[in-house]
Amino acid sequence: MTRTAAIIGGGVIGGGWAARFVLNGWNVRVFDPDPEAERKIGEVMGNARAALPMLYDFALPEEGTLSFHGTIAEAVTGADWVQESVTERLELKHKVFAEIQAANPGVPIGSSTSGFKPSELQQGAADASRIMVTHPFNPVYLLPLIEVVPSEATDPGAVEAAKDILTSVGLYPLHVRKEIDAHIADRFLEAVWREALWLVKDGVATTQEIDDAIRFGFGIRWAQMGLFETYRVAGGEAGMRHFIAQFGPCLSWPWTKLMDVPELTDELIDMIADQSDAQSGHLSIRELERKRDGNLIAMMRALKQQGNAAGRLIKTHEATLRHMPDDGPPMISARRVIPVDWTDNNGHMNEGRYGQLFSDASEAVMAAVGADDDYIAGGLSYFTVENTIKFIEETHAGERIEVHSRVTLGEGKKLRCFHEMKRASDGALLATSDQFMLHVNLVTRRSCEPPEHVAARVTQLAALHKET
Amino acid sequence: MTRTAAIIGGGVIGGGWAARFVLNGWNVRVFDPDPEAERKIGEVMGNARAALPMLYDFALPEEGTLSFHGTIAEAVTGADWVQESVTERLELKHKVFAEIQAANPGVPIGSSTSGFKPSELQQGAADASRIMVTHPFNPVYLLPLIEVVPSEATDPGAVEAAKDILTSVGLYPLHVRKEIDAHIADRFLEAVWREALWLVKDGVATTQEIDDAIRFGFGIRWAQMGLFETYRVAGGEAGMRHFIAQFGPCLSWPWTKLMDVPELTDELIDMIADQSDAQSGHLSIRELERKRDGNLIAMMRALKQQGNAAGRLIKTHEATLRHMPDDGPPMISARRVIPVDWTDNNGHMNEGRYGQLFSDASEAVMAAVGADDDYIAGGLSYFTVENTIKFIEETHAGERIEVHSRVTLGEGKKLRCFHEMKRASDGALLATSDQFMLHVNLVTRRSCEPPEHVAARVTQLAALHKET
Repeated sequence: MTRTAAIIGGGVIGGGWAARFVLNGWNVRVFDPDPEAERKIGEVMGNARAALPMLYDFALPEEGTLSFHGTIAEAVTGADWVQESVTERLELKHKVFAEIQAANPGVPIGSSTSGFKPSELQQGAADASRIMVTHPFNPVYLLPLIEVVPSEATDPGAVEAAKDILTSVGLYPLHVRKEIDAHIADRFLEAVWREALWLVKDGVATTQEIDDAIRFGFGIRWAQMGLFETYRVAGGEAGMRHFIAQFGPCLSWPWTKLMDVPELTDELIDMIADQSDAQSGHLSIRELERKRDGNLIAMMRALKQQGNAAGRLIKTHEATLRHMPDDGPPMISARRVIPVDWTDNNGHMNEGRYGQLFSDASEAVMAAVGADDDYIAGGLSYFTVENTIKFIEETHAGERIEVHSRVTLGEGKKLRCFHEMKRASDGALLATSDQFMLHVNLVTRRSCEPPEHVAARVTQLAALHKET
Repeated sequence: MTRTAAIIGGGVIGGGWAARFVLNGWNVRVFDPDPEAERKIGEVMGNARAALPMLYDFALPEEGTLSFHGTIAEAVTGADWVQESVTERLELKHKVFAEIQAANPGVPIGSSTSGFKPSELQQGAADASRIMVTHPFNPVYLLPLIEVVPSEATDPGAVEAAKDILTSVGLYPLHVRKEIDAHIADRFLEAVWREALWLVKDGVATTQEIDDAIRFGFGIRWAQMGLFETYRVAGGEAGMRHFIAQFGPCLSWPWTKLMDVPELTDELIDMIADQSDAQSGHLSIRELERKRDGNLIAMMRALKQQGNAAGRLIKTHEATLRHMPDDGPPMISARRVIPVDWTDNNGHMNEGRYGQLFSDASEAVMAAVGADDDYIAGGLSYFTVENTIKFIEETHAGERIEVHSRVTLGEGKKLRCFHEMKRASDGALLATSDQFMLHVNLVTRRSCEPPEHVAARVTQLAALHKET
């Protein structure tokens, strides 16, 4: 059953929400009075379509529909979730909530606000119990964090429902248990931003130098462990107490401009804008977005391969995307998008990744004959002994492909597959793989006969896939 | 000519410096009065040996020697660089500098200090002009950032020499032009740390929740672009000025506890330590280090594949590690360590990565016949048409391997190679690849004859590699 989200307020954030839902198979209904809204959301959708599917090694569900509506009432009709991302003016938000609740009384409402607490949002609401903060991070179509902040008036059931919805579209709802100005993450961003403004103003460092100081050092650490776990490791065997004892005293040293707020004079704004131009002005915003998204995808996929941090979230979500193929023929053993980290300098798919694609396809065939993850965990598997790949046409990042597989030999320990990699758009044959595998015992690391139920399925598929 | 670094003060930081130099082929002489120093540095060396070589797709140079010495004078004798990482006590540092300069007057000295400015370090020094801050980030053997902070008394020539040395071992020297307490990066760390302590103390968030708020959101952004470039993109087409105008007013809102320093009471320390145990206590520090290093390697390799941020630094350093193979036989076309991001869940090297390894080996063969990067940039290359890989023995992350290649056919457009992948430790044959390539015009994407000088080299190698 397709679910429906209403997005109130477009822009970069609203557009990111719309994309996240549409690409996960939800229908999305947008209200934004800006005459440019459809174009703006279209641009975010374009970025998101190119990026989000690359996080996963399986295809996302069929896209939902995206529609634009002239009134809030129309947009929220039939919605299972409403996401509000209008301008940060409290009286405007109150007005929007009133219209939403008049048209769709029971619907849970999340606000993208960074500036208001849920209790402020709820002032004067017809039903405060359905309103909470669900604060995302740009780009919303890639970054998993959502701060979910209820007030005491929010219904706990609505919060749990919201967390389920967010999780189902690949997000990570961080339940903030105590409402506070700026929630959690933005308090850190604010502290760093303020300190960075001082460093620029005082001529200590340029915007480029500050960015380098972040991305070549602690930024990489924080992407995977955050602050406390990083310091726990730094403390060594002696642990957190030792670390605090060592690092503690500097809290009261003049290591930040903590007593002062920099004044945003025209002079300071010019200085920052000029330095930023010098640093990044050779690239357009579109180019910077593509660069950023490429980096994020490649790093998040790297974390997925490690099974840690944001990568673990993606892995969990990806498990819901995996489907057992029909026996066929054709047996469709893989269906996916080629991600950016699979390409060479010259932009086409690296030779090695064909091997990985066909190896993933074989895993699907193995699962279909009963040699699935549990089976492997139980100590039996198939290992590839020989693989011949023919490269027929070039493939590029972003292309959707399918692998059609046939079992060409199934005798005792032997399992042989012939895979055809096809471009989804026109069915063009891109590469083939003739893959010969042997059934192995993972303890002895030697080949052995598979159990009867697997052997029978292999024989059955080989007969079914025989070319006639 | 092997160069020599003296490391004064072991521990996690000194050990990381030692490892960085030794693994880049420097001889390292250590002084640390701690009787445990050799064991402690040995542990860091172990981590570093397992991690640093994985960043690169070519082998690092032969390790230098690591020796321990009973006096500072002995350790710094003949050193080209001295790195001081002793306890953060100024009078101790002054004493250490005096001993270093008495024994090796001209040597440039870098201090790992976070707490002192270079002008403070130089007080009373025999030769202030050789002393500067070179502040690293843990783990020093993986993270590239070094804040290089001279004072006005530091010789600019010594600073340039230091930057060259640091760059040569794969580090990124960030020249901090104005000395300031805590340099640059630690000012941000301090601001975030202080705010995080308040959030824990006030019961708003646990250490785990704070880490999640960082690593699932802005942490991933900062790993690749830092602060200002991220905000430039967020500002969209309107740019930095627009972003500041939008985000500026919150500077004076109560978004941080900026007026207050949290007091580190026993109660607060206990609260943090207990929360940290709940979050990470199921893993030992060694396990956390391995997890961290695996994540960092995989993410930095992902950035390398994208050619951006820290990955661009690694790419530049890696270019110095690439060597043209001898014609042989055997022609050694690859020599490297299997990185963590090349393994499957079951810990052995993914099928696809064999294809990538052999593709890299072919690139070395191509370069040897004149089809190198410049040649490809000029519009000609070889494309693989068919590749048969035989998988003989399993391979795991961390193993050193070599590929021995022979040109088995070289006729007109055709280039065929036979590659043998061998374990470096015992020469065991792990896999073979029979790879058939065609010479192509990259503009028409069609096969074509190679120019005469390339054709001649191909014929020459085929004759040389013919089995007799």
